[in-house]
Amino acid sequence: MIQDPYEAIKELGAAPLWKYYGNLFPAEPKSEAVPYVWRYRDLRPYMLHFSEVLSLHEAERRVLMLVNPGLTEPPATVNSLYAGIQIILPGETAQAHRHSASAFRFIIEGEGAYTTVNGERVDMHPGDLLLTPGWHWHDHSHEGNGPMMWLDGLDYPLVNKLEAGFFELLGVRMQEQTVPANSSTKKFIHGRLLPLWESPAGPHSPIGNYPWSETEKALAGISDEAEGSAVEGIVLEYTNPWTGGPVMPTMSCRVSRLKPGFHGLPFKHTASTIYHVVKGQGETVVDGVKLDWAEHDTFCVPGWAQYAHVNRSASEDAILFSYSDEPVMKALGLYRHI
Amino acid sequence: MIQDPYEAIKELGAAPLWKYYGNLFPAEPKSEAVPYVWRYRDLRPYMLHFSEVLSLHEAERRVLMLVNPGLTEPPATVNSLYAGIQIILPGETAQAHRHSASAFRFIIEGEGAYTTVNGERVDMHPGDLLLTPGWHWHDHSHEGNGPMMWLDGLDYPLVNKLEAGFFELLGVRMQEQTVPANSSTKKFIHGRLLPLWESPAGPHSPIGNYPWSETEKALAGISDEAEGSAVEGIVLEYTNPWTGGPVMPTMSCRVSRLKPGFHGLPFKHTASTIYHVVKGQGETVVDGVKLDWAEHDTFCVPGWAQYAHVNRSASEDAILFSYSDEPVMKALGLYRHI
Amino acid sequence: MIQDPYEAIKELGAAPLWKYYGNLFPAEPKSEAVPYVWRYRDLRPYMLHFSEVLSLHEAERRVLMLVNPGLTEPPATVNSLYAGIQIILPGETAQAHRHSASAFRFIIEGEGAYTTVNGERVDMHPGDLLLTPGWHWHDHSHEGNGPMMWLDGLDYPLVNKLEAGFFELLGVRMQEQTVPANSSTKKFIHGRLLPLWESPAGPHSPIGNYPWSETEKALAGISDEAEGSAVEGIVLEYTNPWTGGPVMPTMSCRVSRLKPGFHGLPFKHTASTIYHVVKGQGETVVDGVKLDWAEHDTFCVPGWAQYAHVNRSASEDAILFSYSDEPVMKALGLYRHI
Amino acid sequence: MIQDPYEAIKELGAAPLWKYYGNLFPAEPKSEAVPYVWRYRDLRPYMLHFSEVLSLHEAERRVLMLVNPGLTEPPATVNSLYAGIQIILPGETAQAHRHSASAFRFIIEGEGAYTTVNGERVDMHPGDLLLTPGWHWHDHSHEGNGPMMWLDGLDYPLVNKLEAGFFELLGVRMQEQTVPANSSTKKFIHGRLLPLWESPAGPHSPIGNYPWSETEKALAGISDEAEGSAVEGIVLEYTNPWTGGPVMPTMSCRVSRLKPGFHGLPFKHTASTIYHVVKGQGETVVDGVKLDWAEHDTFCVPGWAQYAHVNRSASEDAILFSYSDEPVMKALGLYRHI
Ligand SMILES: [Fe+2]
Ligand SMILES: [Fe+2]
Ligand SMILES: [Fe+2]
Ligand SMILES: [Fe+2]
Ligand SMILES: [Fe+2]
Ligand SMILES: [Fe+2]
Ligand SMILES: [Fe+2]
Ligand SMILES: [Fe+2]
Repeated sequence: MIQDPYEAIKELGAAPLWKYYGNLFPAEPKSEAVPYVWRYRDLRPYMLHFSEVLSLHEAERRVLMLVNPGLTEPPATVNSLYAGIQIILPGETAQAHRHSASAFRFIIEGEGAYTTVNGERVDMHPGDLLLTPGWHWHDHSHEGNGPMMWLDGLDYPLVNKLEAGFFELLGVRMQEQTVPANSSTKKFIHGRLLPLWESPAGPHSPIGNYPWSETEKALAGISDEAEGSAVEGIVLEYTNPWTGGPVMPTMSCRVSRLKPGFHGLPFKHTASTIYHVVKGQGETVVDGVKLDWAEHDTFCVPGWAQYAHVNRSASEDAILFSYSDEPVMKALGLYRHI
Repeated sequence: MIQDPYEAIKELGAAPLWKYYGNLFPAEPKSEAVPYVWRYRDLRPYMLHFSEVLSLHEAERRVLMLVNPGLTEPPATVNSLYAGIQIILPGETAQAHRHSASAFRFIIEGEGAYTTVNGERVDMHPGDLLLTPGWHWHDHSHEGNGPMMWLDGLDYPLVNKLEAGFFELLGVRMQEQTVPANSSTKKFIHGRLLPLWESPAGPHSPIGNYPWSETEKALAGISDEAEGSAVEGIVLEYTNPWTGGPVMPTMSCRVSRLKPGFHGLPFKHTASTIYHVVKGQGETVVDGVKLDWAEHDTFCVPGWAQYAHVNRSASEDAILFSYSDEPVMKALGLYRHI
Repeated sequence: MIQDPYEAIKELGAAPLWKYYGNLFPAEPKSEAVPYVWRYRDLRPYMLHFSEVLSLHEAERRVLMLVNPGLTEPPATVNSLYAGIQIILPGETAQAHRHSASAFRFIIEGEGAYTTVNGERVDMHPGDLLLTPGWHWHDHSHEGNGPMMWLDGLDYPLVNKLEAGFFELLGVRMQEQTVPANSSTKKFIHGRLLPLWESPAGPHSPIGNYPWSETEKALAGISDEAEGSAVEGIVLEYTNPWTGGPVMPTMSCRVSRLKPGFHGLPFKHTASTIYHVVKGQGETVVDGVKLDWAEHDTFCVPGWAQYAHVNRSASEDAILFSYSDEPVMKALGLYRHI
Repeated sequence: MIQDPYEAIKELGAAPLWKYYGNLFPAEPKSEAVPYVWRYRDLRPYMLHFSEVLSLHEAERRVLMLVNPGLTEPPATVNSLYAGIQIILPGETAQAHRHSASAFRFIIEGEGAYTTVNGERVDMHPGDLLLTPGWHWHDHSHEGNGPMMWLDGLDYPLVNKLEAGFFELLGVRMQEQTVPANSSTKKFIHGRLLPLWESPAGPHSPIGNYPWSETEKALAGISDEAEGSAVEGIVLEYTNPWTGGPVMPTMSCRVSRLKPGFHGLPFKHTASTIYHVVKGQGETVVDGVKLDWAEHDTFCVPGWAQYAHVNRSASEDAILFSYSDEPVMKALGLYRHI
């Protein structure tokens, strides 16, 4: 053993743990993501600009990725999740493909566009939540007037970290429609009723669209005296009707109403969260950083950062849509909070 | 051993299996229940009559039990389930109590009555399904005009067979209302959304009322091209939003639409079923017995009896509400069908 | 309406609830079963007697049913369960059949017999627990010397109450052996290891025999300082390795060790239980009735009866095998205790 | 909008998806890990060397990390998992701490050491699998003779990717022993019996040690005619007795027997796997790379790499211990295989 033993073991594929220990086992997690707000009023003009100057040939999808300043390479919005804002113009389409990453669209503005998911045309209206579970074929079309914009949510950062991502083009630009338009929503959204001749086709919700018209009724149905959450207000989770659990195994999607003057208690958990402002304005303090937000803005709360929401208005509700990797943390025994 | 050995073992609490074997292990089940229809148009006058001539003192509840001719002692409608028709007049009440047996009401006619279940007032409208899960306090009141009639469904025959039934009077006639009226329905019925600050309080649905207005939308939302069940038509199950499963652990409640001219395939399973005709007319052939049914009639299909439904009308839908002990059969590994 | 209205509704299949109410909803359950002990030393001579005087032709199975004095027609041991003592002589066989009722054998004495269950020969030794889940083919054989006796446990009273019982003879006397003898036990009993190339074939344990040799080790492995249950002592449940739950959906099988001088706390629950004394002697007071028990005796505790166990010996353990319908009560939301 | 719009959106935290798309959505996963073998006979001398020359003060734990050549920064063995070889000398200890990462030890050689996990001393013998579920206090001691060596398995690469890792020192070097030594194994390993007075304390197995003596019996109990897996041979999964599932939510631990001359079919799945050779010698071809392995070697199969095992011996079994992140892939809907 004349050789330097550290060199020798390196050649054998080994390394001394005693030189790494502290880095591998931090006292607590410190996300590389930072608290951040993406302002819609600032980004919107650029979206319109790019949709005008770039052909679909140049940019198959005109999407602005909301990249966390702490997570630029590879780009992500929080550790395991991504948010982007997509614009589609009348007459445009996006070609049919599928990927392991699960996705959803939360519609911001416009009318007349639709996505087709595994053969079902799903129409979009502002406030609607449309699902594209992992490995489902999807393409988009716009047959209305004016630009259509939506928030894209995906778990590709997680899927890529786990080295489990596949992608496929269908080969034809638009998939065939094999079931009546919007049929899954019609079949599953009303009355807590489930069709007995069907059964789950995977670990995801069968619902193509959770329409805002229903979400509004749900929010309106809860009395002002309802207890709610001291952290998130009147917070509702979109669920998979087959299980009552999250809509997809990797993402929990939620909508919350912060009553006028709501001051949330500070909270901290290992899940990472992306919020999108449906309505209203307020602020969220994240680890001492104040994030001001207004309608259609998107902001994030990294994992294990302390946060507290405030609805600044004394007369108007604030409505937040949000999504997080809480189901991942819980499934793996890693959810923790204080 | 001078004694007759058969006498001797009898005194010791034993009996010879070889004298019983065949009875204990029949080749297949033969329900003691028989196929039967209870006709609303015939029963209704008697319900009105009894509600007039009997004071609440004489009959705390004016209910006509729908007793299967094969199950008179103790009375039951099918082997494990009970159906009754209850009438309540304006100004009347039924005193607060609870029991291990789970119950529901399916409203037939009238307006203005309500039940209070564990502190929540739940209003009744025709077609609504109201739940009273086991061991929930409940009382009824009628503040409207005209008689109110509903179908009571209970699992007391099962609970009593299992020797697991408890009963308690609250002591005061009417329980206090501790939450806003109809709040559980408002909180849980819309948009497949679940309040995140709540969690299941037992193995039953938290919903007090599955309103007909929602059930109608659910039925209307399913396209005429939907596959449905070849046996039951467009058949939907009322579910527990926390699990996606049946509303109560012992009873599955369903609503089905038989399209004009529907001829169901014959089917046979170990579950026992009670059907109530919401609308339309038709016939169900059960083990060779033809049961004709019309609006508001109730009929039963005993377990392991072959049945096939027909909607006689060429132009009108028939709508059937039904409930069965299928969840019991499945939980215990005893569900079987051909 | 000239007719007596009570007569009239009777003809229409209806009955007045107000005349039945109290009977259908008792304040608490009162089992028809009574506390009882079946003494092995008394029954054993009769078993030998019948096995001598009756040919297999006369009595396909020489089984003494342990009939509860309160449950003679149809015969059962407690409300939903049955116990019997079976004897088989060298050279005898019992012909292959199957039934919906689930069964097990707990071996009392003898060596050399075996049962074949769905193609697997399962050998019997005193203290072994052998399963015959519902609808599994089974036949018995005895190739040893001397009589073999065991306790049969079945849920046929439950299955028959639920009108869900089927029975079938295989047609040939002995089924073919299609897998190596005792292979399921070998495959599943050691090291908490599960074969990854297999998957559950139903809601029951795949294990043919839980051998006493392993049960003994399990009991011995628990230190004398272990907390145990104040009611049942060191009580272990035989489990289905695929789920960690009960061996069959309708019956929980258990073994418990009452340390010398153990005085259990009184307890009461809605489940019905049958105990079999593997070793030792003691007494169980059930609703004020003292049941003395000694080795190989069988005794029962009806549902909702208060019971407390005592090990009378100051130096020897008492070991009780037991089974109950607790999984049924829990699955249906009817389990309750005080 | 005089500014370069690409610059402008960058300042607003946005980036053009159309410039990233292909990288984020690869056609299929290509692990950064490479197939690799770590040879025990080569590494062992260095382990002895370091244990001699480094004081515990200099290296709290003498562990050689098995670092995949493709995953050096941060170091990992496969994408989500880590393997290391630890040596501890008589009289040495490792101080009490806990971390979110779940861990296990698979003992390679030596006698007399033990770990203490949440107050329970767990003794180590070659072939034993000892669990340290996430956030369980643990420390190690060696009261025997000669060096003790084991394989450490951890999921810290996954936990760190998910930014969910916490770490804590207990403060005292050795935790107190609060339950009898080895009590969890004694309580849970035999007879598929579960103590009814206990209940799960989290999503992990309660067993401290799956002793090799039991694992050996499990392997021996399976007949040579058993079907097994065409890919992995006679492969058994260590399970959590409360659920029948994996021992910890992030790692499946397995042991497999490759019969003499076994040639496994090639297989490919998204899970990453680390194998440790308990006995025998053979080769595994991974994406065209031949990995030769012998006793006590460790090798890895990255996710979505095709692999096939061969036992080179015509007379001796090969026994492989392995662990993978398959439970993660399955919980998140990302498991896929061909
Ligand atoms: Fe996509
Ligand atoms: Fe789908
Ligand atoms: Fe009632
Ligand atoms: Fe409730
Ligand atoms: Fe049998
Ligand atoms: Fe089986
Ligand atoms: Fe550690
Ligand atoms: Fe633990």
